[in-house]
Amino acid sequence: MEFTAKQVSDLLGGKVEGDANTKVNTLSKIEEGTSGSLSFLANPKYIQHIYTTKASLVIVNDDFVAEHPVSATLIRVPNAYESFVKLLEIYNQIQLDKKGIEQPSFISPSAKIGNDCYVGAFAYIGNNAVIGSNVKIYPQAFVGDNVVIGNNTTLFSGAKVYSECNIGANCTLHTGTVIGADGFGFTPNSENNYKKVPQIGNVIIEDHVEIGANTSIDRATLGSTIIRKGVKLDNLIQIAHNVEIGENTVIAAQTGIAGSTKIGRDCMIGGQVGIVGHITIADKVKIAAQSGIGSSITTEGEIVQGSPAFGIGDYKRTYVVFRKLPELDRRIKELEQMLKDLKQPS
Amino acid sequence: MEFTAKQVSDLLGGKVEGDANTKVNTLSKIEEGTSGSLSFLANPKYIQHIYTTKASLVIVNDDFVAEHPVSATLIRVPNAYESFVKLLEIYNQIQLDKKGIEQPSFISPSAKIGNDCYVGAFAYIGNNAVIGSNVKIYPQAFVGDNVVIGNNTTLFSGAKVYSECNIGANCTLHTGTVIGADGFGFTPNSENNYKKVPQIGNVIIEDHVEIGANTSIDRATLGSTIIRKGVKLDNLIQIAHNVEIGENTVIAAQTGIAGSTKIGRDCMIGGQVGIVGHITIADKVKIAAQSGIGSSITTEGEIVQGSPAFGIGDYKRTYVVFRKLPELDRRIKELEQMLKDLKQPS
Amino acid sequence: MEFTAKQVSDLLGGKVEGDANTKVNTLSKIEEGTSGSLSFLANPKYIQHIYTTKASLVIVNDDFVAEHPVSATLIRVPNAYESFVKLLEIYNQIQLDKKGIEQPSFISPSAKIGNDCYVGAFAYIGNNAVIGSNVKIYPQAFVGDNVVIGNNTTLFSGAKVYSECNIGANCTLHTGTVIGADGFGFTPNSENNYKKVPQIGNVIIEDHVEIGANTSIDRATLGSTIIRKGVKLDNLIQIAHNVEIGENTVIAAQTGIAGSTKIGRDCMIGGQVGIVGHITIADKVKIAAQSGIGSSITTEGEIVQGSPAFGIGDYKRTYVVFRKLPELDRRIKELEQMLKDLKQPS
Repeated sequence: MEFTAKQVSDLLGGKVEGDANTKVNTLSKIEEGTSGSLSFLANPKYIQHIYTTKASLVIVNDDFVAEHPVSATLIRVPNAYESFVKLLEIYNQIQLDKKGIEQPSFISPSAKIGNDCYVGAFAYIGNNAVIGSNVKIYPQAFVGDNVVIGNNTTLFSGAKVYSECNIGANCTLHTGTVIGADGFGFTPNSENNYKKVPQIGNVIIEDHVEIGANTSIDRATLGSTIIRKGVKLDNLIQIAHNVEIGENTVIAAQTGIAGSTKIGRDCMIGGQVGIVGHITIADKVKIAAQSGIGSSITTEGEIVQGSPAFGIGDYKRTYVVFRKLPELDRRIKELEQMLKDLKQPS
Repeated sequence: MEFTAKQVSDLLGGKVEGDANTKVNTLSKIEEGTSGSLSFLANPKYIQHIYTTKASLVIVNDDFVAEHPVSATLIRVPNAYESFVKLLEIYNQIQLDKKGIEQPSFISPSAKIGNDCYVGAFAYIGNNAVIGSNVKIYPQAFVGDNVVIGNNTTLFSGAKVYSECNIGANCTLHTGTVIGADGFGFTPNSENNYKKVPQIGNVIIEDHVEIGANTSIDRATLGSTIIRKGVKLDNLIQIAHNVEIGENTVIAAQTGIAGSTKIGRDCMIGGQVGIVGHITIADKVKIAAQSGIGSSITTEGEIVQGSPAFGIGDYKRTYVVFRKLPELDRRIKELEQMLKDLKQPS
Repeated sequence: MEFTAKQVSDLLGGKVEGDANTKVNTLSKIEEGTSGSLSFLANPKYIQHIYTTKASLVIVNDDFVAEHPVSATLIRVPNAYESFVKLLEIYNQIQLDKKGIEQPSFISPSAKIGNDCYVGAFAYIGNNAVIGSNVKIYPQAFVGDNVVIGNNTTLFSGAKVYSECNIGANCTLHTGTVIGADGFGFTPNSENNYKKVPQIGNVIIEDHVEIGANTSIDRATLGSTIIRKGVKLDNLIQIAHNVEIGENTVIAAQTGIAGSTKIGRDCMIGGQVGIVGHITIADKVKIAAQSGIGSSITTEGEIVQGSPAFGIGDYKRTYVVFRKLPELDRRIKELEQMLKDLKQPS
């Protein structure tokens, strides 16, 4: 893919400053620019790089004023960052533009596939599955019986959706995502071993959800595990059975949420957090990385840290003292000695 | 699937109270009942729901006495919970009833497959593999060379078993389970880089073991990594080479166990626990979530928490004081000032 | 595979002591030896086992002097451990010797495959992929468009490499490894939901890298996520976008590294560690398991523990006091009472 400065500028509704025939074939950060690359300058902190960048073409804000000579061709736009993200999107659309059914793939005769879909080789689509339009199912992905997938959703290579689960529109499931494995439910019996509680519910993923690599979301025992609209899950996350995650909540990698817990909307949860089962987290709560949540958080917008977690300000103050515990111990010993001396003067 | 109250009652050996022709086609919790759903009432805490539930059919204990009118048809049985679980099992058996060999699949000519098996499309069964009867190998699962799998075991879509490993009877391996990848063994050499120690052992999984999504169990360097009868492993767990886990031990999601550690039987290990290598954990030990175990636990039935972990009661008492560390610090400062004042009265 | 003592000895350049026709068909630890197994004695701590082992053949150091009768045949070599590891390697080479293209597999007409490769059934090799010589791509592995893979690299069953990524020579990617999924990049918009930042960079894995089961390494937003020569990653690790890991650094299971962080060379990072984004870790740093790293570590060779982490010696001293916090609390109360008594004598 090669574009001229003029083509890019027309696409963005911008204004070229310099050689309109400048050719670019890749995108780069301004400080890593190379000949033939297109970059952008939005954050004033990076301004010095525009005088030294090797990028051939740089998108800048309308009000950028060069204080030294700039060798790159410029495109002026109202918002350089947004324009650059738009180019990233276009680049990605072109790169990931896959259509058609590769062979061999397995599509059950009772499955329905919408228009303009991609089904990669060795992908499996089970009985009565209903796949929307413009869906991309990469090679080796698995769509179980009776699964429903909305329009414009992508399952990358090897993503797996167990039977009966529902995936919304405009979702992305990355490689290794497992939707709908059995919840971890066992009851001890008289012989001191465990009997499985069959897990016959499903998982419902609403629209605009993104799920990272190797994340697993278990099906409900009964009813549904629910991931609401706009939720973003990073890699290697564990969501247990009957959990519900509210709209637009964002969760970083390697966090785990135990069974039946309800997470509010607009929450931000750091990496490697653990949340016990059967509790409720209010809306807009923020949880620092590696925290452990052992009971419900009922105050909207609370920010917590620690394991078990409490208010982040208190936690930070506590940790400052924690770090000087050996000193505290020594000071207490000194106090004890001083008091002993006071009471029994030598 | 649609059943009448009479059919369900006959299956459970129960007694219908109300319209024996009531039809149901799904299962639900009593508080989430809908027309056409079958539910149950076992826990007295939920008794009020039976007067308002929209479920068409409810299984109750023989001794249930209605204090208000109940619109649902009832089935009376000696143990409502057990009867409902039995229905869940039957439902699951029907839902997951797969048989036969789908094409294309890859079965080595030297592999042996028992009766009544399911082999899904794109599943791979290697040389000299021996698969028992009634085994389900879902699409895209992998069974390496010389692997042995016992009767009635299920490998869900994309579960992978490396060569030479043994899986017992009545086991369930969920999607993304990896059995038998190389243990993490390297020795530093003179040029300050690492030389791999070949991992030529295997993994032995005994009967009635369930393994969750994206859990990995590494093969032994020599000999075997062993998961004993009845062990239940949740999702995203790491079991390193040469580990042994005793019978009926249950481990929650995202826990990791380092190389050569031996875990006793009937242990309960919480989520996100880390256990170092080359130690021994006694039988019936319980470990709280997010704990770190740095040395052997030799007392049967001990319950620990913390990182490094110690007795859970002590840990909880310690954490209470931890939370008021800034206050302790202040009190020590006050004591110091008071003593200073005492010694040098103004 | 069966070998005589003489064959093994010739392979190792050793000297047989006992019956040169002794036959072995497996390898074992000396304490787990069985008839027909070959073992070794290197560590003096294990010396007593040589008098009782059931192994048929034992490799010993040249200077070993038996103080009691030994029933096993011996092979004397300069370094018994190294010789045994050499046998493990040979054993593994024979066990894992796969060649040729199994059917059905999917190889794009525009892909280039080197000599002596193995491509397993249901493996997928995308457009313009370039695969070196002696590469093993096991069943159900995925190699995206434009991926480059160096000589002698192995992708085990189901390992996945997204488009545009580069894998070096002599690398091993275990099952469930995901290379090049999208980085976790979103910007909030006015409607309080998140807009994806397209991730158009790639992942570069240099030579001699080993990556464990179910580990995920995300592609860069722009530019590359880079794993340098000789890095060893255990299972279930999360490496975010634009991270760089220096040469020969070793990371244990379930550790997570957030976006844009740079890790030095020759570092050793324990299991379940969390490292925040946008920081730098110096060379040769060691981080204890379950630690949390919240800011850059600039001193080469520093050893840290805790969450947030600080010097490991200080941490251990601090934790000793932490464990006796309830006692400290009591002692402070006693001091307060004593001072009160001093000031107001009864």
